[in-house]
Amino acid sequence: MGLIVQKYGGTSVGDLDRIRNVARRIAKTYDQGNDVVVILSAMSGVTDQLIGMSGRISKNPDMRELDVLLATGEQTTVALMAMTLIEMGYQAQSLLGYQAEILTDDKSCKARIMHIGASRITDLLETRKIVIVAGFQGADARGNITTLGRGGSDTSAVAVAAAIHADQCEIFTDVDGIYTADPNICDKARKLDRIAYDEMLEMASLGAKVLQIRSVEFAKKYSVPIHVRSSFHEEEGTMVVNEEANMEQVIVSGVTHNKNEARITLRKVPDRPGIASRILNPISDAGIQVDMIIQNTRSGHMTDLTFTVAKNDYRAAMEISRQTAKEIEAEEVLGDEKIAKVSVVGVGMRSHSGVASRMFATLAEENINILMISTSEIRISCVIEEKYTELAVRSLHTAFGLDAGE
Amino acid sequence: MGLIVQKYGGTSVGDLDRIRNVARRIAKTYDQGNDVVVILSAMSGVTDQLIGMSGRISKNPDMRELDVLLATGEQTTVALMAMTLIEMGYQAQSLLGYQAEILTDDKSCKARIMHIGASRITDLLETRKIVIVAGFQGADARGNITTLGRGGSDTSAVAVAAAIHADQCEIFTDVDGIYTADPNICDKARKLDRIAYDEMLEMASLGAKVLQIRSVEFAKKYSVPIHVRSSFHEEEGTMVVNEEANMEQVIVSGVTHNKNEARITLRKVPDRPGIASRILNPISDAGIQVDMIIQNTRSGHMTDLTFTVAKNDYRAAMEISRQTAKEIEAEEVLGDEKIAKVSVVGVGMRSHSGVASRMFATLAEENINILMISTSEIRISCVIEEKYTELAVRSLHTAFGLDAGE
Repeated sequence: MGLIVQKYGGTSVGDLDRIRNVARRIAKTYDQGNDVVVILSAMSGVTDQLIGMSGRISKNPDMRELDVLLATGEQTTVALMAMTLIEMGYQAQSLLGYQAEILTDDKSCKARIMHIGASRITDLLETRKIVIVAGFQGADARGNITTLGRGGSDTSAVAVAAAIHADQCEIFTDVDGIYTADPNICDKARKLDRIAYDEMLEMASLGAKVLQIRSVEFAKKYSVPIHVRSSFHEEEGTMVVNEEANMEQVIVSGVTHNKNEARITLRKVPDRPGIASRILNPISDAGIQVDMIIQNTRSGHMTDLTFTVAKNDYRAAMEISRQTAKEIEAEEVLGDEKIAKVSVVGVGMRSHSGVASRMFATLAEENINILMISTSEIRISCVIEEKYTELAVRSLHTAFGLDAGE
Repeated sequence: MGLIVQKYGGTSVGDLDRIRNVARRIAKTYDQGNDVVVILSAMSGVTDQLIGMSGRISKNPDMRELDVLLATGEQTTVALMAMTLIEMGYQAQSLLGYQAEILTDDKSCKARIMHIGASRITDLLETRKIVIVAGFQGADARGNITTLGRGGSDTSAVAVAAAIHADQCEIFTDVDGIYTADPNICDKARKLDRIAYDEMLEMASLGAKVLQIRSVEFAKKYSVPIHVRSSFHEEEGTMVVNEEANMEQVIVSGVTHNKNEARITLRKVPDRPGIASRILNPISDAGIQVDMIIQNTRSGHMTDLTFTVAKNDYRAAMEISRQTAKEIEAEEVLGDEKIAKVSVVGVGMRSHSGVASRMFATLAEENINILMISTSEIRISCVIEEKYTELAVRSLHTAFGLDAGE
């Protein structure tokens, strides 16, 4: 008996049959005596289809109106789900973002949730209704519809869970949970039973697409336990929770990789104060996010500056860099799209030393050259040649004792 | 220079090209110095598609949730239209029903507009924005989405026009205006330049599908001039306005026909007080609307009762009537689906006598038997055999001097 928030993604509600399956799962949770609030995404493909439609109107469609358009996706699924549950004999009611009082800032297409006035949801729960809330959407202070960006339904779910003090926020998805590595390239990868918010944050920012980063930030801030699990079967998935004492006993919780970055180097840049921002400002002014940055001092007054960007920003970033190089009289601009970033993540690093050297040694043993390194308190990332990605992930997975059966 | 409300139906916004065409028309009106508020329907076919989807979930889908589902149709078109206008360089903004403060009662799927708080619309107009309002939808006092029933966008348009004191409400449709008869069966039919609200109300209730009846009632109540015109060309259509002095000079403004009714007769019913309601109550309890009712007294204590219902209610009404006949010991129940109702309409009837007799004489001349008659102050309707419909319409059109060129 508890208060459960369940979030189902687009694949789980992709057609009427799947909606019926999800409805049965919701009903089962309800029948066990729980109060249930459900957050839904749009049917898979619908959001892309709507974006495509707006793209035929304008290369830069008005963002306020794009939000109005996109919000129809979740509106459709919550209505269909409520209908389905009612047809099954349950009391259910849909709420759109503004009806659920999900108040956001006014940044169209990437709004952030400011506040959730939970009264309408809790009123419905008190009458033992199943409440079906449209994910991904909210409203700003003036009542304009806003959306929360890709994966925003995760954040809707966690935020609602926080607002109504839910006992658990279940995120149903098409994977079984969080793995120690991508099972597609590492067949010894294991599903984690528990993972700390901070670890999940690092993994999400490294490209593990299971949860939107902001949803994890929200969960951490309000200590909402997230249960990432499959919508296709009933097995337990992975709990994302506050750091626990025994978590530190494990040095590394997971190995991740990201092939979606490219590297740009400006060689022989005159080494003077402010040169890094002189190079990187035009990049960020173009809306391009820079991930890793490394500056090597060369002999004399020259330096090399290397940074990585997402692959689909690579061409634009190269063009800007060539222009900047000309202006600051750098010698040349080198680009490399054939790179990958492999990382080890674990709160255990805080108390264990030697993680970095073990990582470097493992890669060296396989003759994998390290091109760049960056670290956080609980993560070490190395950029390597792309072709070594799978080998690197498997070697690190073994080296840090993560292989299944160990 | 004025304040113009324009309403475009589903065919006019059926795809992105058509939306672009409509946007150009809106822009032209705006460029002439007018303030413009636009009401849009869903793309043609979309509402039926959504209803079909809900029908696969339930034979009686929950009406509140059906409204949430249906409202996505207009939400899509207003967003796309606003985007298109903005792409063309105009300032435009969409408003959904609740954002335009269209307050309705809480009757899902057939809500009635109670009030429109026009402040948001007029605020936007003051900044010279083109305001694009979702038709067909509103919200009840608790913020639930409601819809106004088939053709509800007409009512949205007229109600908004009334609320903001618009100079004119233009209803763009796929016909050129209101005709003296259906041009498909009467090639001498003429487009009317002007028609009185009351005449339009009679015509709409007789099955002329150009305007939703409620929109005309609203227009009459608030004296909103409606201009019914084609979205395919720029010619003037028909103005629907308050009755004017010279309108009475014309005896009959139009001849209409309706093949969508069926007739049911209960023969030899015991003639006692309350027998009509004993027969008709079960019909209306089943949600079936009865149009014409005639009771003939027979010799002795017996009477015949005849009434008409819409054709798609015929079977249900027959079944109920047979049951009632058994209970009240009527002799038999006769049904006839092969009937039509032809009507002449005109405010001129108020001051001209002899309209009825001219109508009956005209039908008699063509050997058309009259099965039932009903009248209002400005209308005379005759039920005839269906096969005579076209002949009757053409004869009456000529007899009342409506033929083109006269």
